[in-house]
Amino acid sequence: MSIVDANLSAARQRIAAAYDPAAFAAAGEQLVDVLAEHLRRVEAGEGNALNWCQPAELVREAEQALHCAARGSATPTPDTIADRVSQLAHECLARGQNLHHPHYVGHQVPPPVPLAALFDLVGSVTNQAMAIYEMGPFATAAERAVVTAVGEQLGFAPGTFSGLVTSGGSLANLTALLTARNVALGDAWATGLTGHRPSPVIVAHADVHYSITRSAGILGLGTDHIRRAALDGRRRMDAGRLDQQLGELRSRGVPIVAVASAACATPIGAFDPLKDIADVCRRHKVWLHVDAAHGGAAAFSASHRHLIAGLAEADSAVCDMHKMLFVPALAAMVFYRDRAHRLAAFHQEAPYLYDPIAPALAEYDSGLATIECTKRAAALGLWGVWSLFGPQLFGDLVDVTFDLARQFHALLTAADDFEALHVPECNIVAFRHLPPALRDAPGERIDLFQLQLRRAVVESGEYYLVQSRLEGRSVLRTTIMNPLTTVDDLCGLLDCLRSYGSKLLKRAS
Amino acid sequence: MSIVDANLSAARQRIAAAYDPAAFAAAGEQLVDVLAEHLRRVEAGEGNALNWCQPAELVREAEQALHCAARGSATPTPDTIADRVSQLAHECLARGQNLHHPHYVGHQVPPPVPLAALFDLVGSVTNQAMAIYEMGPFATAAERAVVTAVGEQLGFAPGTFSGLVTSGGSLANLTALLTARNVALGDAWATGLTGHRPSPVIVAHADVHYSITRSAGILGLGTDHIRRAALDGRRRMDAGRLDQQLGELRSRGVPIVAVASAACATPIGAFDPLKDIADVCRRHKVWLHVDAAHGGAAAFSASHRHLIAGLAEADSAVCDMHKMLFVPALAAMVFYRDRAHRLAAFHQEAPYLYDPIAPALAEYDSGLATIECTKRAAALGLWGVWSLFGPQLFGDLVDVTFDLARQFHALLTAADDFEALHVPECNIVAFRHLPPALRDAPGERIDLFQLQLRRAVVESGEYYLVQSRLEGRSVLRTTIMNPLTTVDDLCGLLDCLRSYGSKLLKRAS
Repeated sequence: MSIVDANLSAARQRIAAAYDPAAFAAAGEQLVDVLAEHLRRVEAGEGNALNWCQPAELVREAEQALHCAARGSATPTPDTIADRVSQLAHECLARGQNLHHPHYVGHQVPPPVPLAALFDLVGSVTNQAMAIYEMGPFATAAERAVVTAVGEQLGFAPGTFSGLVTSGGSLANLTALLTARNVALGDAWATGLTGHRPSPVIVAHADVHYSITRSAGILGLGTDHIRRAALDGRRRMDAGRLDQQLGELRSRGVPIVAVASAACATPIGAFDPLKDIADVCRRHKVWLHVDAAHGGAAAFSASHRHLIAGLAEADSAVCDMHKMLFVPALAAMVFYRDRAHRLAAFHQEAPYLYDPIAPALAEYDSGLATIECTKRAAALGLWGVWSLFGPQLFGDLVDVTFDLARQFHALLTAADDFEALHVPECNIVAFRHLPPALRDAPGERIDLFQLQLRRAVVESGEYYLVQSRLEGRSVLRTTIMNPLTTVDDLCGLLDCLRSYGSKLLKRAS
Repeated sequence: MSIVDANLSAARQRIAAAYDPAAFAAAGEQLVDVLAEHLRRVEAGEGNALNWCQPAELVREAEQALHCAARGSATPTPDTIADRVSQLAHECLARGQNLHHPHYVGHQVPPPVPLAALFDLVGSVTNQAMAIYEMGPFATAAERAVVTAVGEQLGFAPGTFSGLVTSGGSLANLTALLTARNVALGDAWATGLTGHRPSPVIVAHADVHYSITRSAGILGLGTDHIRRAALDGRRRMDAGRLDQQLGELRSRGVPIVAVASAACATPIGAFDPLKDIADVCRRHKVWLHVDAAHGGAAAFSASHRHLIAGLAEADSAVCDMHKMLFVPALAAMVFYRDRAHRLAAFHQEAPYLYDPIAPALAEYDSGLATIECTKRAAALGLWGVWSLFGPQLFGDLVDVTFDLARQFHALLTAADDFEALHVPECNIVAFRHLPPALRDAPGERIDLFQLQLRRAVVESGEYYLVQSRLEGRSVLRTTIMNPLTTVDDLCGLLDCLRSYGSKLLKRAS
C-alpha cells in the first residue's frame, strides 16, 4: 500500500468513527437526558436565569475545548464520544441564557416548545437543505403546509396568496421590501438604482424595527430615504397623517417603494390600525408591508386577533415562527397577498439547480423565492408542534403571555415606586423604577439609573430583562415570553429591582 | 372562577403538557433510536438515495398531519407524545433526501457528521438566539472560537482579521459585498445609489455562484452591472486579463465595488489563482472578495491546501461550514482580512439591544455585524465536532472526497461511452453519457438526453446526481460529498446511467 493509500485508509477509519450510528445513538440518548434534566431544573426556576460571565473569559473556555481535541489520538469509541458530547453540552448549558426559566422576561425570543427542537433535529441530522424540492422533499412539503395554514389563519384568502420561509425576521423584512422595490421600480433589479431620481423612499412607522431601516441601506435606497410616519398617542401609525404624507410625496413625484407598518412595533408593542392604513395605501397605490414578526400570532387567539384586523389587506407581511409561535430560531415567514409576486424578489438563472425539463417542479423550489440557496428545514418545528397539539396551543400561548403582561401592568400601576409607561396591547411592557430618592432627580440621572439597575440585575442572574429608549428616555422593558412565568415571578421582579436599586443608590450616596 | 380565568387555566394546563420535560425525554429517547436506525440503514446503502414523490401529493400528506391534530382533544401524555413524534419523524424520513446514502453524489450539500446535529439540538432546545452576547453567551463564545480557528487555518494573520457567522453562503456573499459596497462608495449606506454615476460595477468570475449576481440586484447596483471576468482554459479567472479589465474600468472612471473570485466555482470546481488575482486587485486598489464557500475547507488538508494559496490576501472571503466542513445547514462564515471592516456593513442603532453603559460588550454582539438580528447558534455544530475529533477530521473529509472524484474521473476516462469534461481539482465532476447510438446525434439531442437521463435516475431513487450547463451544453454533474461513497458505488453509477440511458433510447426509437 502506498503512503497516500495508507493515509486515505486511516482517514476513512477516522471518518467511519465520526459517522458511526452507534456513536450517534449513545451520544444522543445521553444528551436527551442531559437536556431533559436541564429543562426540569430551569423550568422549575432552579439556578439563575442567566449565569453571567465576561465574554473574553468564555471565549477562552470555548477555545480550550478546540485545543484539547487536537491533542487526543486514540480512535474514540461510541461510549467515549457519548461522554464527551455530554461534557461539552454541559459546558454550553452552564453558560447559556435560560429562556425556560420563569425569571426570563427579556427579548422577543421565546423559550421554545422543547419538542419543536426534536423536529429540527430530524432536519439537521438528515440535512434537508432544500433550495430545490429534490434536496428536501418532505421539508418542502411541511414548509408549504405551514405557510398555507398560518397564512389562512392570518386571514389571507385560500389559494390567492403565497409565502416563503426564511432565516429570521430581518431577512424576511429585507426579502419583502426587495420585492416591493422591484415592483415599485420596475427595472431596478437589472439596472440598479443609479438612474432613479428623485430618490425613492420607504415610509416607515417611526418605531419600526431596525431591520427595516437597514433594508433601505442594503437595497441601495439609503437609510436617509426612510420617511418616518407620524404616530398617534399610543405610538401607532396615524392613518390620517399617513394619508397626508403619501399625498405630499406623490404630488412631488417621489417614488414610494412601500409603507412599512408594524404589528406590533418593538418599543411598547403597539399595533397599527391596519385596516385604515391599508385603505390609505390602496388609495395612493402604495405597497403596504406589515412587520407582524411578533404580533402575527395574535391570529391564533380569539381574544386578541382583533389586533391584526386588516393584516390580510397588506401586500406583504412577515410573521416569525420563532417569536410568538414558540419554535426555535430561525424560522420566519414572508407572505405576499397576491401570489403573482412570489418570484418578484429575484430574476435569476442557476442551471444546475432548476430542471428545464420539469418546469412544474420549480413551483416547489424554495431557492427561487428566498435569499438563501441552501436552506435549513426551518418549518419542521412548527409543523411538528402543530401536528402534535393543533393550532389551539398557539392561541393558548398568546392568551397566557398577553394576560401576564396585563397583570404585570396592574402591579406596576399599583406600586408607587414604579412608573408604567403605557397600557400593554400584548406581552411587551415598558416601565421605569422610580424610588422616592430619585423622584426629583434630573432626567439623565433617572436614565442612567435604569441602565445601571438593569445591568446589575442581569449580571446577578436573578432575572433577565432588557432596556430601551422611549421618547428620549431610558426605560426598562420586559417581554413576557415565557408562558411558565407566574404573577408571583413578576412580583419578585419588582422586589428584585427594588433591592438592586437600593444598593445602587446607597453606593452612589 | 370567571370564564376568562377558567380558559386561561385550561390554556396553562395544555402549555404545561407541551413543555413537560418528561415528554421531551420520552420523545427524544425514542427519536434518537429512530434516527440512529435510519442512519444505519441509509449509510449501509439500504433503500433508495431518494424516495421520489410528486410534490403536490407530499404537500397533501404534510397538510393531513396538521388537520389530524386539530381533531385530537384529550391532554396527551409523555408516552403518547413520544409515539406521535416518532410517527411524524418516520413520515419525514420516508420522504427525505438521504444524503448519507453512498449513492448520494449530488449537490454541494454534505451528509453532516451526525453528532454535529446533537450540538445543534443543544442550541435549539435552549434557543440561544444571540444578536447580543447576553442572549447566548456560550453560543457567542463558541462562534468566536471557531471563527478564529477557521480563519487562522485559512491563513489570516492571528489578531488582525475578523469574522462572523451567518445563515448560509448566499447571505454571506451578500454581507461581504455589502461591506465592499459601503467601503467603495462611502455614502451609499445613508444616501443610496441614486446619485452614483457612472454605475458602479462588480467584476465577477464568469462562473460565479448566482448569489453574487443576485447580490448586485439586491444591493441596488443592478445585475446588468456585473462585469464577467475572462476565464482561462481551466475555467479559472485569468489574472492577466483581469488586470486589463480593471485598468480599462479605472481609466473610464467606473467605480469598482469588488472583484468576486471563486475557490472554487460551482460548474467544475475550478479554483482561481488567488495569489495572482490578489496582486492585481492590490495594484488597482480594488476590494477582492473570494467565494470559498466550498473550497475553503481545503485549508485543512496538507495535500490540497495549495488550491487556496493567496486566499488570506483577499479583503473578504466566505467559507461555508455546511459544505466541506460537514455540519448541518445553515452555517456560513464571512471573513474580513482587516478587522477594521467588521462593522462596515451596517451603521445602525437599536437602543433596546446594545447597552450604552457597557460598550465593551458590543464587540461580542453579533447583530452589529450580521443581517440577522435574532440568530441561530449556528457554530455549535462545528465547535462540537472539532472539539470531539480535532481539525484532522476536516482534512480527512477533504482528502477522501477529493480522492473519490479523482478515481471517478479515471473511470469516466476509461469508459468509451462517457465523456469526462475536465480534470477535477476537488470533488466536483462534470461529465456526459454518450452511448454509441448518440455519438453523431445533434447537440440538442445529446443535451436533452442528459437531462432526461438524470431525471429518470433521480426518480428511480437509485442514485442522486445533478445537471448543469457548461459552455452551452447540458451536462451531468456530481459532487462526491459523501465520504462513505466507495469506488464500487461510482462504478455502479455508470452502470445505472447506462441502464436508464438504454431504456430511454429504446423508448425513443
